[in-house]
Amino acid sequence: MAQISEAIRDGAEGFFRTQYGTISKMALLLALVILSIYLFRNTTPQQESSGLGRATSAYITVAAFLLGALCSGVTGYVGMWVSVRANVRVSSAARRSAREALQIAVRAGGFSALVVVGMAVIGIAILYATFYVWLGVDSPGSMKVTDLPLLLVGYGFGASFVALFAQLGGGIYTKAADVGADLVGKVEQGIPEDDPRNPAVIADLVGDNVGDCAARGADLFESIAAEIISAMILGGTMAQRCKIKDPSGFILFPLVVHSFDLVVSSIGILSIRSTRDSSVKAPIEDPMAILQKGYSVTIVLSVLTFSGSTWWLLYTEQAPSAWLNFALCGLVGIITAYVFVWITKYYTDYKHEPVRTLALSSSTGHGTNIIAGVSLGLESTALPVLVISISIISAFWLGHTSGLVDETGNPTGGLFGTAVATMGMLSTAAYILTMDMFGPIADNAGGIVEMSQQPESVREITDILDAVGNTTKATTKGFAIGSAALASFLLFSAYMDEVASFAHESFKQVDIAIPEVFIGGLLGSMLIFLFSAWACSAVGRTAQEVVKEVRRQFIERPGIMDYKEKPEYGRCVAIVASASLREMIKPGALAIVSPIVVGFLFRVLGHYTGRPLLGAKVVAALLMFATVSGILMALFLNTAGGAWDNAKKFIETGALGGKGSDSHKAAVTGDTVGDPFKDTAGPSLHVLIKMLATITLVMAPVFL
Amino acid sequence: MAQISEAIRDGAEGFFRTQYGTISKMALLLALVILSIYLFRNTTPQQESSGLGRATSAYITVAAFLLGALCSGVTGYVGMWVSVRANVRVSSAARRSAREALQIAVRAGGFSALVVVGMAVIGIAILYATFYVWLGVDSPGSMKVTDLPLLLVGYGFGASFVALFAQLGGGIYTKAADVGADLVGKVEQGIPEDDPRNPAVIADLVGDNVGDCAARGADLFESIAAEIISAMILGGTMAQRCKIKDPSGFILFPLVVHSFDLVVSSIGILSIRSTRDSSVKAPIEDPMAILQKGYSVTIVLSVLTFSGSTWWLLYTEQAPSAWLNFALCGLVGIITAYVFVWITKYYTDYKHEPVRTLALSSSTGHGTNIIAGVSLGLESTALPVLVISISIISAFWLGHTSGLVDETGNPTGGLFGTAVATMGMLSTAAYILTMDMFGPIADNAGGIVEMSQQPESVREITDILDAVGNTTKATTKGFAIGSAALASFLLFSAYMDEVASFAHESFKQVDIAIPEVFIGGLLGSMLIFLFSAWACSAVGRTAQEVVKEVRRQFIERPGIMDYKEKPEYGRCVAIVASASLREMIKPGALAIVSPIVVGFLFRVLGHYTGRPLLGAKVVAALLMFATVSGILMALFLNTAGGAWDNAKKFIETGALGGKGSDSHKAAVTGDTVGDPFKDTAGPSLHVLIKMLATITLVMAPVFL
Repeated sequence: MAQISEAIRDGAEGFFRTQYGTISKMALLLALVILSIYLFRNTTPQQESSGLGRATSAYITVAAFLLGALCSGVTGYVGMWVSVRANVRVSSAARRSAREALQIAVRAGGFSALVVVGMAVIGIAILYATFYVWLGVDSPGSMKVTDLPLLLVGYGFGASFVALFAQLGGGIYTKAADVGADLVGKVEQGIPEDDPRNPAVIADLVGDNVGDCAARGADLFESIAAEIISAMILGGTMAQRCKIKDPSGFILFPLVVHSFDLVVSSIGILSIRSTRDSSVKAPIEDPMAILQKGYSVTIVLSVLTFSGSTWWLLYTEQAPSAWLNFALCGLVGIITAYVFVWITKYYTDYKHEPVRTLALSSSTGHGTNIIAGVSLGLESTALPVLVISISIISAFWLGHTSGLVDETGNPTGGLFGTAVATMGMLSTAAYILTMDMFGPIADNAGGIVEMSQQPESVREITDILDAVGNTTKATTKGFAIGSAALASFLLFSAYMDEVASFAHESFKQVDIAIPEVFIGGLLGSMLIFLFSAWACSAVGRTAQEVVKEVRRQFIERPGIMDYKEKPEYGRCVAIVASASLREMIKPGALAIVSPIVVGFLFRVLGHYTGRPLLGAKVVAALLMFATVSGILMALFLNTAGGAWDNAKKFIETGALGGKGSDSHKAAVTGDTVGDPFKDTAGPSLHVLIKMLATITLVMAPVFL
Repeated sequence: MAQISEAIRDGAEGFFRTQYGTISKMALLLALVILSIYLFRNTTPQQESSGLGRATSAYITVAAFLLGALCSGVTGYVGMWVSVRANVRVSSAARRSAREALQIAVRAGGFSALVVVGMAVIGIAILYATFYVWLGVDSPGSMKVTDLPLLLVGYGFGASFVALFAQLGGGIYTKAADVGADLVGKVEQGIPEDDPRNPAVIADLVGDNVGDCAARGADLFESIAAEIISAMILGGTMAQRCKIKDPSGFILFPLVVHSFDLVVSSIGILSIRSTRDSSVKAPIEDPMAILQKGYSVTIVLSVLTFSGSTWWLLYTEQAPSAWLNFALCGLVGIITAYVFVWITKYYTDYKHEPVRTLALSSSTGHGTNIIAGVSLGLESTALPVLVISISIISAFWLGHTSGLVDETGNPTGGLFGTAVATMGMLSTAAYILTMDMFGPIADNAGGIVEMSQQPESVREITDILDAVGNTTKATTKGFAIGSAALASFLLFSAYMDEVASFAHESFKQVDIAIPEVFIGGLLGSMLIFLFSAWACSAVGRTAQEVVKEVRRQFIERPGIMDYKEKPEYGRCVAIVASASLREMIKPGALAIVSPIVVGFLFRVLGHYTGRPLLGAKVVAALLMFATVSGILMALFLNTAGGAWDNAKKFIETGALGGKGSDSHKAAVTGDTVGDPFKDTAGPSLHVLIKMLATITLVMAPVFL
């Protein structure tokens, strides 16, 4: 056991070092680009009035960017570090009791999750405090506190930049290894998953750690950071517009909400206790029910603390009942999170109709299985979109009618209401992330158990945990995409505010009836399709390299199949690592370069045709359409992938002929297709959506 | 031969009757709905000034709707009528020479194509002339000629309504029969395609006629009708704004362009002549090259007639060089069409890299084949989007700088420039449609040859024609989606004009920064995903019924495999027919009901929150986002499907192990998945995009 775990640890840490080495080089390069852009940008009227020079503004943005990138890297490292150490402990606990194994996995996942949320809160708090003191905010003649959050945008961009490459590289790694191992091992040679004879098995287990743990950590870190910053910007703008005397409550509110998240989620995690009497052979309790119980505890506490925070920070004399409206917005967000989790479960759990129908379609062959899975995925976008629509509108109207009005008496709280709903949605993020991190740890533990040839009963326990992990992983993705959808709407508003402030003129509308703006939208949606294509094909190509290597080893070392020879695990690890690093560059570069190029080209076109804001408008349309298409595409990819995976699992329980039947073979094909969908392209799209929002904010000077 | 052909004819005509029976009942119902809506609508200032009463306006719209529906039905019938008669003639010609078979297939396809384009031109011309005389247009105190085209919108909606259900029903029919026949015949029993022992083979051949011939005819009829009407509306509006003395040139221009299309395409078709010396065993010429030559002839002539028409009709004294700019717009359109055809060929023809890579990925299994195909399809959206973007911008700017200015001196020709480019793109529609119609006729001829067990050499000839037909079918889809993209942008402008005219206030902007409008967009994109899901799953479900029936027949009549018993072809035909009629309702109803419901709900919401145009704005966003997502999704589905089909064909030429190898099996899976993509969901999306544009125009009173 220890030996296997060590091999996994070495592989994961080796890949992490190389991957983050590459990422940090790119980040430094980008930092230089940002620096030079900002040194040549215009200054805003606010900056001029506060005496914030061009150079200061440039250094601030770059410093925030680098800090965001660094923090994101640290969270990724912690996620991986914990996970490669917890896996072996979980597998040895599984020899004693299911409950204990569950508890260890949850605690380990919880630790990483708390670090992720904590880093986001602390990073932003430090930046905020530093700038506050350094720039002498609120003292006469200098910057106003309401303008401060805009300086933090670089942090969000840094976080999303690292998250994008972490998710792409890790996602390609984990799925290429998985698909490659399965194609030769399971399909061609007929050996079980995670069998020690498969030369790619260690690479597969390493993938769980670098792909799922490290990458999802970076993803949610980025979500929370982006959401905190955009909510701070919106809160600041609104407070200024409403002439609220002390706006700091509105600005600091997001930080407080997420600090409470740390507390309530910890309580939720600790509520999952190991009952010592489980050794007396009690029937194995459904781990999903245990996790769900913890979630309920977290949600109840979160509703209480959230309402308390709104009353504490958002109470103003101007609108005495505003805090209540905002508390309701938070409730909308919490309910949305809950409904999203439920919808994802409905479409991906084999207890429900959709996955059963999908499994049934496997009985008529590979082709019908794929058609049914694609249809299921496409169809599953409908309910989440309806839910998101209802929450945006209701949160907006709750905010709008909160009683907060600007100088001219117009209600202004609408957008902030949406922001509060987003915070509500993310107010249980640490617990959700715990459930997610738990999955790959359990998966890994199962792998170690299988590889070290433990008795069947131990494997059974880890199998149950693994199946639960699959469901929680799928639901977390639903949660992540829901919050991305809400957050991007906020970031979009922040972008328009920023453009208006730099362009010295009002920028309130993005009119899609203008041909160029329409084309911006077309390009934005296209970007999503192309990005998904490249992410999927990267997995396909890398998997083919793995397939060739595994086939080669089986041919050259015929003794492997009889356990007489040991496969060369290291070669597969090396091949996957170098291929996934190479393959992550193309889609990543596409995501970063295209909004900048589009914005710049249309800025030039606008310049020659006498329309000064054209570039910014086209980028706004690109951002909006990319967001909408990205949400739908990510929902499609995640759900289809999850459903295929569980349809296969359903058949493996003995339904429709069970393991080895033709239905099972067709279901395995579906699972293989679903792997890059749900673990590479889909999650990368979450990050992409938010990265587009932050990159347009930071790069706005290029378009103007 | 005659017997088989008769069975196909009976099946096709039987389905056509039932299908169009259902469609006409729905059309009558919808006509009643439109009538009652229009009897309660507001009148526009123009109508009031011209004395066009509410009742007259209602009857005009309903009459136009019904005429459009009728003409669309007639074109569908002609397409099917010709095709079920030409197929047997082509198969007997194939016994003599390839060239003769090609010529008959092309002439038959050409006849249908000319009928389609002719019907569109004549239908609109008749309506226009009738209204002109009946309403006493241009006489003092009555309607102005520039307002006339808006009355024709019902015609476009009628055409798209019928086309939607024709495409859905036919598409589900043809692919369910095809997939069902292949899954049991090819995969399970290992008998060749179109083998007479397969009980579903007649249903498959019927499908080619009702799905491909009838449906594509209705699709392009609708494209042309919608494009003519929107160009007439735009031409009228522009002429009025520029105070051009005789605006009829601008209004009638689209009709003239498409009349010339009939002439130039006929010449192109006739240029494909049978050289009688082909009987002296000349090596078979590449039929694709012959078709391409005819296309070149058509294009050259079309450039000439198009430029002539612009000079003749669009010359005004106010802007003496405007006609030249518009001629260049037309050229932009023609080039766009050519480039689109080329891009589609690049991605779907196995002479080029993408399909070869796809075929290679089949060698590592079903899963990698699907992943590679999905990536290919997603990636193939990029180039067409770039081309569309460039053409919209350049046509817009050519129109904008044409010298046409409104009263206040602002250039106004931009949008009309885009309209002219669309006309340019469609100015060779009859020839393109000929190439498309040719495909299913050749396919059918091949089926008849195989079923009547002709010698190998005959089958070889029809196989070559069939392969060419596959490529031309794919390219026509590229063409159809390109023109849909351009046309929908025009229809969108027409919608905004119409809303402005009914709402008695300016409606120039659709601002996606308003939450409700953003949600309209989200819902629009979601509509595309859900529609595609339902279209694909309809095929999957129907195919499963076919699979069960075919399996039953093979089990109950074991003599079928030894040619001792005859399969019951009729039962498969009946099952597919009734299932596809049932399955076409759900996606069709979704497409028609959802824009109306969304518009109405947000109108009510807008009413209570004091924003009068909210419903119209939300629908505008829905329309725009649905158009963008629809274009991308259709490109993805069409290209992926075409590429899978040809990757399979490439392997069947002997590459990568050839027929029967594992690679081939994986490629067949891809082909099966691609079938509903490229022949049901994809083409239905073309129609959906344009139907959304016309339904919003006709139903605008509901949203206001």
